Amino acid sequence: MATPTSKVSENGYVQPAVDVPALTRLLDGEHAAVRDKVRVALVEHAHLLEEAEELPREEFRDRVLETVVAMAGTGQTAYHFPKEYGGGGDFGATVAAFETTAFGDLSVLVKVGVQFGLFGGAVLNLGTKPHHDACLADIAAGRLLGCFAMTESGHGSNVQAIGTTATYDASTREFVIRTPDDASRKDYIGNAARHGRMAAVFAQLVVDGDEKGVHCLLVPIRDEAGQPMPGVRIGDCGHKMGLNGVDNGRLWFDDVRVPREALLNRFADVSEDGVYSSDIESPNRRFFTMLGTLVMGRVSVAGAGISASKVALAIATRYADRRRQFTADDDQPEQLLLDYGLHQRRLFPLLARTYALHFAQDGLRRHFDDVFSGRATSEQVRRDLESKAAGIKALGTWHATRTIQECREACGGAGYLSANRFAALKADTDVFTTFEGDNHVLLQLVAKGLLTDYSSEFGDMSQLDLVKFVAGMAVDQVVERTMAHRLIERLRDVLPGDDKWNQDSGLLDPAYHLDMLRFREEHMLAGAAKRLKRGIDSGMPAGEVFSRVQDHVIATANAHVERLVLESFIAVFATMPHGPNRVALGLLCDLFALTTIEADRGWFMEHNRLTTNRSKAISREINDLCRKLRPLAVDLVDAFGVPEELLRAEELLTWQ
Amino acid sequence: MATPTSKVSENGYVQPAVDVPALTRLLDGEHAAVRDKVRVALVEHAHLLEEAEELPREEFRDRVLETVVAMAGTGQTAYHFPKEYGGGGDFGATVAAFETTAFGDLSVLVKVGVQFGLFGGAVLNLGTKPHHDACLADIAAGRLLGCFAMTESGHGSNVQAIGTTATYDASTREFVIRTPDDASRKDYIGNAARHGRMAAVFAQLVVDGDEKGVHCLLVPIRDEAGQPMPGVRIGDCGHKMGLNGVDNGRLWFDDVRVPREALLNRFADVSEDGVYSSDIESPNRRFFTMLGTLVMGRVSVAGAGISASKVALAIATRYADRRRQFTADDDQPEQLLLDYGLHQRRLFPLLARTYALHFAQDGLRRHFDDVFSGRATSEQVRRDLESKAAGIKALGTWHATRTIQECREACGGAGYLSANRFAALKADTDVFTTFEGDNHVLLQLVAKGLLTDYSSEFGDMSQLDLVKFVAGMAVDQVVERTMAHRLIERLRDVLPGDDKWNQDSGLLDPAYHLDMLRFREEHMLAGAAKRLKRGIDSGMPAGEVFSRVQDHVIATANAHVERLVLESFIAVFATMPHGPNRVALGLLCDLFALTTIEADRGWFMEHNRLTTNRSKAISREINDLCRKLRPLAVDLVDAFGVPEELLRAEELLTWQ
Repeated sequence: MATPTSKVSENGYVQPAVDVPALTRLLDGEHAAVRDKVRVALVEHAHLLEEAEELPREEFRDRVLETVVAMAGTGQTAYHFPKEYGGGGDFGATVAAFETTAFGDLSVLVKVGVQFGLFGGAVLNLGTKPHHDACLADIAAGRLLGCFAMTESGHGSNVQAIGTTATYDASTREFVIRTPDDASRKDYIGNAARHGRMAAVFAQLVVDGDEKGVHCLLVPIRDEAGQPMPGVRIGDCGHKMGLNGVDNGRLWFDDVRVPREALLNRFADVSEDGVYSSDIESPNRRFFTMLGTLVMGRVSVAGAGISASKVALAIATRYADRRRQFTADDDQPEQLLLDYGLHQRRLFPLLARTYALHFAQDGLRRHFDDVFSGRATSEQVRRDLESKAAGIKALGTWHATRTIQECREACGGAGYLSANRFAALKADTDVFTTFEGDNHVLLQLVAKGLLTDYSSEFGDMSQLDLVKFVAGMAVDQVVERTMAHRLIERLRDVLPGDDKWNQDSGLLDPAYHLDMLRFREEHMLAGAAKRLKRGIDSGMPAGEVFSRVQDHVIATANAHVERLVLESFIAVFATMPHGPNRVALGLLCDLFALTTIEADRGWFMEHNRLTTNRSKAISREINDLCRKLRPLAVDLVDAFGVPEELLRAEELLTWQ
Repeated sequence: MATPTSKVSENGYVQPAVDVPALTRLLDGEHAAVRDKVRVALVEHAHLLEEAEELPREEFRDRVLETVVAMAGTGQTAYHFPKEYGGGGDFGATVAAFETTAFGDLSVLVKVGVQFGLFGGAVLNLGTKPHHDACLADIAAGRLLGCFAMTESGHGSNVQAIGTTATYDASTREFVIRTPDDASRKDYIGNAARHGRMAAVFAQLVVDGDEKGVHCLLVPIRDEAGQPMPGVRIGDCGHKMGLNGVDNGRLWFDDVRVPREALLNRFADVSEDGVYSSDIESPNRRFFTMLGTLVMGRVSVAGAGISASKVALAIATRYADRRRQFTADDDQPEQLLLDYGLHQRRLFPLLARTYALHFAQDGLRRHFDDVFSGRATSEQVRRDLESKAAGIKALGTWHATRTIQECREACGGAGYLSANRFAALKADTDVFTTFEGDNHVLLQLVAKGLLTDYSSEFGDMSQLDLVKFVAGMAVDQVVERTMAHRLIERLRDVLPGDDKWNQDSGLLDPAYHLDMLRFREEHMLAGAAKRLKRGIDSGMPAGEVFSRVQDHVIATANAHVERLVLESFIAVFATMPHGPNRVALGLLCDLFALTTIEADRGWFMEHNRLTTNRSKAISREINDLCRKLRPLAVDLVDAFGVPEELLRAEELLTWQ
């Protein structure tokens, strides 16, 4: 680790010497103690990373469970539970712990997420005191293992359409749970195939013949001996691409009876004699209120994706700083991989984006903590949180897939060996892009919030509702509504070709970067709204209109989230004290902004926001930034604070 | 499968009805019989796909070997061997068989490649009649299992720098093979960890104290009982991301003695009394002549990557044509995934590129067959082959990685289950991008050929040589030399903003597409040459110059290969008889061309070859092409002829 003084690199730049411990403290933030506690536990269980390859599946599943229970025993998996049930009453800490847990074996991570986040979260957020008293302490300790049985084979993203029913039988004061067909079997359910005793089952509630929409009930699925309860059929999803330490399974319910008290009744209840009641009148709103609890899963997975990217970058960057290949000049030794311009171009923009996403995730976690702690109560703040969580989850997990892939390739054949960590990292994280909400569907959700300014029920992911909403307005109204940042005036001021956008100076000006990303977002948003409106006005069916504009809608959401991410990075940078770490983060922030603009430079040119000369200048500037980052790169990945034992990759990291 | 008449799709287009069997015949081409023979064998061994997940590693390795030997027994793995040794004397057939084998378990594929292509190929191409007589029949039958021991831990892409030595001892008429350090151990060697008896070992030949460069020798590594031979140490690479049915290992040689006849002496020999002789004077040229035999591996892997893409697209497309999610309109059933514009945008450009690469691969295979059969003998044709193989291998394998990833995500959580084929497909193909030549290094090789017009030793992948070569010329000379298509005149005619490039008509004109890709290639090439030249002239060290221009150099190679691929597609299209299949391929060819231009539209705008309006028009046209392809999509993947049993994914493909 470098000492914090300046140093001159081989190619003559004066480089800031990164203060690695200080940068790690900045990244660890307010939950540094929680993160360190998790680091210690992960190092203790680091051998799991090897066992994952060698153990037969059932043994690996059991080893993962043991690890999860051991971690639960030291109180690091359920910070969000109230103190009286063994938690810490701290939602932010739970997410921070989860982010750090993602440095280790990811089956452990996902099992933690299923048990404490999803199952525990359902009881905590959808249940009431009797449920809490009955279950939470046992869940927190890992004594009562449970499932979150929402997804069905035929109803993945469209939860509102699930087929499982829970029919109230007033004569026995019980609910009868039924799986009507195979499309309605619960699928991919963690903890179901082997360990779960209980399931939080989402089902269409039927009371006195009336469908009341999706509700959640606690249903025992296995007895003390581990045998399925009467009427419960359990299947095993079998071998998966990764995460084979998690026992994903399928559940069918053949008229399984549970007492009336099984209903998690925070938002709605059924009286003994079968009268349904809820404080939330609109069934739609009720549904999305209950689903709002899913946000913790999304916030957590976003952070996990970013952490996995850090692990990959730490290995690939350090290897490239040691490994030589081909001679640069006759009298020279072979050249280090990291001195190749292309190698820098492959790794450093990913490094910059990882830092950017890290800071966006910090903001998201705090936002989440504000809402779930009850400090922030407004509807708008909650909606913002749901949108931001969906967006950062999508971008963070795609980033992980891309980064791990690039880092694996950058380590060549060695990267293909399981001993060097990428195999599990890649296979385990792959599902992140489609679980806890498919990324495309999540971005659609983000776009919908922008287009409707949250006037519609948030969280309804169907296009029908969106198209109808937009169709109901005049075009001007749509465009105005979409101008979240009220930039219309500014846009009018800035005509195509305006010098402001095209001057040669200021390529490294954060205000320029933000202007560019804001312009893109708002222009795309207005354009998508107009196209939707025009389509409906022309008499085209809603489905067809949406299908045609869908790629535009998704691009809009992406533009929105990238703008948010850049804002987060700039905000952190602005508060940093002068010194080498500020300089280093400034380089990363510039690199993130410019590579984001470069990646979409076709669009910016199409919309007269970039001259061809300036576009080329951006590409040159990016290469220049990469050269400046070259001598800092190892420090910048060291600062992530991934324990050495978890990187494995011993041969790569000690390469001579 | 559709009958070949027109049909009207739901959205009102009159669509050609694809004649699937005829299209399969076109794709199977001249080697249809070979391909069908392989299909039968793969279906017979289809249960291997499941066993891959369940069997312990050593058993899986043995099962893969059994399968390979069984396939060898029916003569489908060594068509390239001479008939007298059990082959067919047909290089093209071997590649066609390999391409088809890639529809099945890929450990079998790679084991076939190692045994018959690499090991067998070394004996065949580098050895002489005594070696052939002694080994080829046993190799062809799978009785003599062998390794291709070229790669060393510290010398992956830089084969010329390997450290293993073979020193001639005239007193005993033996070579002494030595591994001087761990960086020089042979690594990732297929067949080494468990099954191989013999290895074709690449080593620096030392004769009478003189280093003669890299040569290949046959070295027994295990005795009849399977124990390592004296002086041979064997390690196991252990668990890998994929291909765990292949026993990759490491080899160290501690002064292992082999007789003089062990040298594969087609291109160079050592006499009994220790006199070295070779018909090829230049050591460099000798090296690259020997390495030229690697081309078969690259041609084969390119085809395998394209085949793997076909498997992924077949599953994802057929699933998307059955699976519904979200309602498009109140009174409608849920909408099919494939009717969503974004889903089409995700899958169809990959489908179009798969077809394009398929036809490019057809041309490459024929080119390879011409050279290796001895029909084409000119140096230029051989150089062209090496360049084309490198380029299509790089683009084909990256395409596989990207396509399989997108298809997995398009199948959601179901795509993550091993039963649905993507897990193995993704893990097994991942190494394709870095083995048989790292893709970036291969593209560098392509670029070097273009920049030096093959004047330099082809195949030398070091940048030093390239930079020096370019530095030795005047800029004009460089630019002229790089104008492979002598388009300078045409370029001068076409000034920026010329209507020819920007007229609104002709977006679907193949001549326009080709002009665009040719312009890009030549402009990039000239630019790269100029930048290299300027860098050297300014006094910058060669390594630094190369590092700065490297991304430009790689982009040039990519542009070159994409142009070749488009030419192949257009050439096939041009020869097709009128009818629905021609119409369908026309749509795919247009889609491939326009998405290729769209992906680099920033560059085209920067270089005044695309107005902003035309750029937007291209994006609209692409969406339109996707809608036209929608009703044909299932037929177009069915035409790949992947046997149903190999797709697995039973639930996805029969989804109700």
